[in-house]
Amino acid sequence: MSKPKVVLAYSGGLDTSFCVKYLAEDRGYEVHSVLVDTGGFTLAELQTVERNAYELGVASHATLDVVNDYYDNCLKYLVFGNVLKNNTYPLSVSAERVFQALAVAEYAKQIGAKAVAHGSTGAGNDQVRFDMVFRIVVPDVEIITPIRDLRLSREAEIEYLTEKGVQRDWTKSAYSINKGLWGTSVGGKETLTSDGYLPEEAWPTQLERQDTEKVTLEFVQGELKGVNGETFENPVDAIRKLQSIAAPFAVGRDIHVGDTIIGIKGRVGFEAAAPLIIIKSHHALEKHVLTEQQIYFKELLSGNYGTLLHKGQFLEPAMRDVETFLQSTQEHVTGKVNVLLQPYRFVVTGIESPYDLMSNVFGSYGEMNNAWTGDDVRGFSKVASNQTMIHRKITELNA
Amino acid sequence: MSKPKVVLAYSGGLDTSFCVKYLAEDRGYEVHSVLVDTGGFTLAELQTVERNAYELGVASHATLDVVNDYYDNCLKYLVFGNVLKNNTYPLSVSAERVFQALAVAEYAKQIGAKAVAHGSTGAGNDQVRFDMVFRIVVPDVEIITPIRDLRLSREAEIEYLTEKGVQRDWTKSAYSINKGLWGTSVGGKETLTSDGYLPEEAWPTQLERQDTEKVTLEFVQGELKGVNGETFENPVDAIRKLQSIAAPFAVGRDIHVGDTIIGIKGRVGFEAAAPLIIIKSHHALEKHVLTEQQIYFKELLSGNYGTLLHKGQFLEPAMRDVETFLQSTQEHVTGKVNVLLQPYRFVVTGIESPYDLMSNVFGSYGEMNNAWTGDDVRGFSKVASNQTMIHRKITELNA
Amino acid sequence: MSKPKVVLAYSGGLDTSFCVKYLAEDRGYEVHSVLVDTGGFTLAELQTVERNAYELGVASHATLDVVNDYYDNCLKYLVFGNVLKNNTYPLSVSAERVFQALAVAEYAKQIGAKAVAHGSTGAGNDQVRFDMVFRIVVPDVEIITPIRDLRLSREAEIEYLTEKGVQRDWTKSAYSINKGLWGTSVGGKETLTSDGYLPEEAWPTQLERQDTEKVTLEFVQGELKGVNGETFENPVDAIRKLQSIAAPFAVGRDIHVGDTIIGIKGRVGFEAAAPLIIIKSHHALEKHVLTEQQIYFKELLSGNYGTLLHKGQFLEPAMRDVETFLQSTQEHVTGKVNVLLQPYRFVVTGIESPYDLMSNVFGSYGEMNNAWTGDDVRGFSKVASNQTMIHRKITELNA
Amino acid sequence: MSKPKVVLAYSGGLDTSFCVKYLAEDRGYEVHSVLVDTGGFTLAELQTVERNAYELGVASHATLDVVNDYYDNCLKYLVFGNVLKNNTYPLSVSAERVFQALAVAEYAKQIGAKAVAHGSTGAGNDQVRFDMVFRIVVPDVEIITPIRDLRLSREAEIEYLTEKGVQRDWTKSAYSINKGLWGTSVGGKETLTSDGYLPEEAWPTQLERQDTEKVTLEFVQGELKGVNGETFENPVDAIRKLQSIAAPFAVGRDIHVGDTIIGIKGRVGFEAAAPLIIIKSHHALEKHVLTEQQIYFKELLSGNYGTLLHKGQFLEPAMRDVETFLQSTQEHVTGKVNVLLQPYRFVVTGIESPYDLMSNVFGSYGEMNNAWTGDDVRGFSKVASNQTMIHRKITELNA
Repeated sequence: MSKPKVVLAYSGGLDTSFCVKYLAEDRGYEVHSVLVDTGGFTLAELQTVERNAYELGVASHATLDVVNDYYDNCLKYLVFGNVLKNNTYPLSVSAERVFQALAVAEYAKQIGAKAVAHGSTGAGNDQVRFDMVFRIVVPDVEIITPIRDLRLSREAEIEYLTEKGVQRDWTKSAYSINKGLWGTSVGGKETLTSDGYLPEEAWPTQLERQDTEKVTLEFVQGELKGVNGETFENPVDAIRKLQSIAAPFAVGRDIHVGDTIIGIKGRVGFEAAAPLIIIKSHHALEKHVLTEQQIYFKELLSGNYGTLLHKGQFLEPAMRDVETFLQSTQEHVTGKVNVLLQPYRFVVTGIESPYDLMSNVFGSYGEMNNAWTGDDVRGFSKVASNQTMIHRKITELNA
Repeated sequence: MSKPKVVLAYSGGLDTSFCVKYLAEDRGYEVHSVLVDTGGFTLAELQTVERNAYELGVASHATLDVVNDYYDNCLKYLVFGNVLKNNTYPLSVSAERVFQALAVAEYAKQIGAKAVAHGSTGAGNDQVRFDMVFRIVVPDVEIITPIRDLRLSREAEIEYLTEKGVQRDWTKSAYSINKGLWGTSVGGKETLTSDGYLPEEAWPTQLERQDTEKVTLEFVQGELKGVNGETFENPVDAIRKLQSIAAPFAVGRDIHVGDTIIGIKGRVGFEAAAPLIIIKSHHALEKHVLTEQQIYFKELLSGNYGTLLHKGQFLEPAMRDVETFLQSTQEHVTGKVNVLLQPYRFVVTGIESPYDLMSNVFGSYGEMNNAWTGDDVRGFSKVASNQTMIHRKITELNA
Repeated sequence: MSKPKVVLAYSGGLDTSFCVKYLAEDRGYEVHSVLVDTGGFTLAELQTVERNAYELGVASHATLDVVNDYYDNCLKYLVFGNVLKNNTYPLSVSAERVFQALAVAEYAKQIGAKAVAHGSTGAGNDQVRFDMVFRIVVPDVEIITPIRDLRLSREAEIEYLTEKGVQRDWTKSAYSINKGLWGTSVGGKETLTSDGYLPEEAWPTQLERQDTEKVTLEFVQGELKGVNGETFENPVDAIRKLQSIAAPFAVGRDIHVGDTIIGIKGRVGFEAAAPLIIIKSHHALEKHVLTEQQIYFKELLSGNYGTLLHKGQFLEPAMRDVETFLQSTQEHVTGKVNVLLQPYRFVVTGIESPYDLMSNVFGSYGEMNNAWTGDDVRGFSKVASNQTMIHRKITELNA
Repeated sequence: MSKPKVVLAYSGGLDTSFCVKYLAEDRGYEVHSVLVDTGGFTLAELQTVERNAYELGVASHATLDVVNDYYDNCLKYLVFGNVLKNNTYPLSVSAERVFQALAVAEYAKQIGAKAVAHGSTGAGNDQVRFDMVFRIVVPDVEIITPIRDLRLSREAEIEYLTEKGVQRDWTKSAYSINKGLWGTSVGGKETLTSDGYLPEEAWPTQLERQDTEKVTLEFVQGELKGVNGETFENPVDAIRKLQSIAAPFAVGRDIHVGDTIIGIKGRVGFEAAAPLIIIKSHHALEKHVLTEQQIYFKELLSGNYGTLLHKGQFLEPAMRDVETFLQSTQEHVTGKVNVLLQPYRFVVTGIESPYDLMSNVFGSYGEMNNAWTGDDVRGFSKVASNQTMIHRKITELNA
């Protein structure tokens, strides 16, 4: 009789390497490892991960490139909504985990797996994201979480692997890095406390440019479609182009402090040059082309969209409704945004758009025009103050 | 018979100088000029304004220092709410105008004036703010707006004043500046278009420091009460202290694009070193000491608070309700925030607070703890995914 | 030379009759009267209005039936959003005025009119709705408002008409009625105060049924498509059918108190049997088929949608974004709703839907199931209480 | 050595009777039973419960009357916020459970209990509410849930008790009833499906009055302080008085469908005469005395307040912030509300308040006044339509 299949979300690190051996040898599974690429790996890295997986004895290993799917079904809307968690963080890891879990779940369906496994500990957000997506997409498939359940120390895991004949350098680097198209997170001893800041050398991308550079972003209905006059059919390519230009300026670094799904506060460094420039540029363009009400309504929903994504609730049907709304708001979000890159910072210097509502055809701010008169504004002020005026009179009458 | 009294909001510029003469000589009023100081004037400037007023022939001139009132009844809440209009602008001019109008209205009541006057044109936000506050606080007093009504050119105003014997240098500076405790706005030819950025020399405060400096802000229940270990009873003094430290780094500059009250888009540069450092630091502290729900509820109201203030609706009773709410949320917003000042930018590097919810007594993010287990989280994920799981099943059943 | 054309929104009442004469004879216009039918007129009434218009001397009279447009572009979304202003009023008059103004504006474009006119006084909401729609759709066409501008008494208007040879019975009825597809408003002396209720005889529809009747509403993606098993391609016909069944029970009566656009409070009675039954039934169905988050997000936008409609801001582009959102949420809002009609009241007794999330396949409320265990819920409770538990501990430590 | 103490939330029903024996005999605890009275018990019922507890062998039994606490710290705010879950349900059971859990937890602290126990099953909301409050208030005390953990059938529980010598009539009534000051819930076979309505006889309170009666409610700063001219110092007494008047009319009945905390939909009947009359009356009064913005801001927070309460999150600190806000909004919510009671329904007929903003001192709706002119409104309309007018022009230019 053949062994049951398990699909393991495999990263090549100590925890998921342990999982391969444990699932195969202690739990009797046929292990199919999967690395889901959300834009953070080089070809060489992918090949190394695959080689390692086979060395550990997986029955099969697959690399699933979901970058376009990830952009089309998620990142696009994060741009439309100018979503930065707590006004800071582009939700890179949150979004990635969901798309990794989705790809693993679909793959498990394809190969008829009886179980899916992830290497998350019991201490963070990722476990919840994997659990939830698996439960929703493949509710009849068992979810196995060896690291969370066994609670082994790194030392114990290494000892276990060594006993199984796996010899590798498991030295933990000082900073744990998670890289994807939408940014790179950096955790280390400074982020474990409330008052530490990452030292210069901890940031994965180092400053290489001391000068300044102007860059022009071209948006078409909310999506980045051009950089410095070069047009990209696929916004993913435009994002990568922008990243290659901006990263040497070491921009887009920050520290995010926020509420984890499990109720404690978490703190993490991140660098996300292209994502932050895109969101800030997109936001600047929107301030010119959207009405005040559109901006207000967008804010009512966008933050909630980010929060549900963060909490692993990406599959909640309300998310689809919000995406439809966000798409509708982007009809006029077309135009160029000019940005000045400088060491460690960037400035949005202006926009050009055929839909710019700051058109001086109808009157510039601070100058008179022909569409309305001072008397009109006087009447406006009078009517707009009516209710408070009445309220105040009545308050005084009752005083 | 004595002339009726008018109280004029007087700044010393061409428009309000014209108003003095016009109100006195063409309209037959006894003109009482008032300059309301919201923290933007030196003693010498105040004296010059007063001298000029008397030279124009005012019956009296008063300088009303409302800085403490302005902080206690408005700026404090802008900090509590981390209010930045369109995520950018500290609402300095919006808030100032309201407090200037309030002071003028109260003064008019005191001296029994029959009219109040302001020098706003018919093209901007200020006219609405003055109109509304006057209408609400002194509804029976006439509002006179010579500049808005007569629509004279600068040349015509100068000619009028010259005919009346007023000789002064009315040369318009390239950039119009409005300074107060909560920031300085800068308007010029670049801000009249969508794609211009202010040149270095246009910013009132120039870069003087090329090095870096650490500064520690101390908040007590949301208010800035200390800077670098020095304690201030009056937060206004703490703000000024911080401004004196930070301004030489030329931080807090930006361009704001937003919706005017009259429906067009407006664009303005501003520099607000202390206000932006305070708001970003306060926000960072809140991320550590407030619960996720507190942060969410605050966001539901804070933006609306800023918008109503911007629109001259400061006297709306709902604003008092929001202030009560914001005050309540600040109970634990006590602690130190460390900031690194650098040329043109600053970084919040961390916080210390006895109310920090990122306490490692109960488990650090990414590390296991004793208050809950992996099994607890597994159960959480299951229950939290129930509804979407059911929704998906039912969708599939109906497909 | 030919006279300039004016299009007048004409109702056949005293005010708009005055306008015909005034515009033609005192202002020199060629008057084209228009009655826009939003579902409140019988054929006989329309014919009477037309005859009266021609008797007054209009150059042309047109009856514009906009009922389908009104439903498709507005009422549909009011149902999707369960919109009741202040949780009471179906916004019938608000919505009607906008669609009347739109039809008038388009007609003015068609016939090349130089002006549009409405008979609103200066005291209510309607003037603003007409003004705004006209200004936005035909900004270059003059807006004439004789009643608002001349402020004539009824007596003066009658005298003017009599002098012009118009003899008609202008006796004002005790209650002013405005009828349309989405309800009938009733104003009278009781609604002018805060403590009067309309007497039985003031309601346009009188109680005719003392028994009870069950009625079944069938919704397809949020729209009423069937009543008691009879299918209607056009929801307008379904609404009329339901109205014919429900009206004899005198249900859907209430008094609305709310904020007018001009800042004062207004109070008006209304009866809207079908609209209220539809909204309450639709809402009940949604409670079964939408997720908690969908319901929450809908509430964030729906109230604002109603408020903007009420304020004459129907053309604001944000409204189109909300409509797209609302449409998206209706995908599963398909099913039957059972309602019991009784004299003066109705009860929604239950629903049936293939998308009902209260499916007992996955566990009924109050009974155990196989999809999760008590331990899972224990874990959920633990994790869900973490943050407050930590907050409380920290509060106690600092006490 | 003495046995460890457990405090059991005891209702006298089968489940909690089982718990007494099980905790005492199988688990070795000294059982202290507690019945927390939130206003739903007669003295005789309380005595019966106590006698039954002692017969089962509890070490002690306590009746904790928390009605005033319940009103002061919760119900008051539900009135201030006009809180009806899903626009229907007064959240009676949700609120009660929290206050029962709070009282049990405090009692456990007082007597030094090592454990607390509740008899909830694993299938509903109550388990989460008990769990969460216990975890937050007494985090170091063990929570025991025999019914949830053992998953025994009623038959098995009865057999167990019979074996232990407990003989009682355990016949389950057709409808499960939960009564408290804020309403009575009714569950039965009809509410287990989506399309059943409770039969007349299932409602605990039967119709006794076929006539009508006028009743006047008197609110002071949002609290019910008088009924029909009789003043009550304690609003709890006013609520009871109103309940005694209104209940014979069988008003306030409805069926609530909503999202349980565990993700499934639940349906329950309820009757809540006084609570619904109070909330609808309070809401009507607010429509007259609050400004439009106050009403809007209240709605942003009130629904969330109800949802957190429903989910057992009453102790979340954000709830205290919302309460402060709600209290602030009630300053002018003083006045009389007139209600007409009829069989099965009631109508709010009007209000009287010194703070009524529908004061005709400043202009009645539909009649002109002296505070503003038609020209003022024309100017208002113009300015208020500016942005959409510009947006439309720009859209046309780009078409």
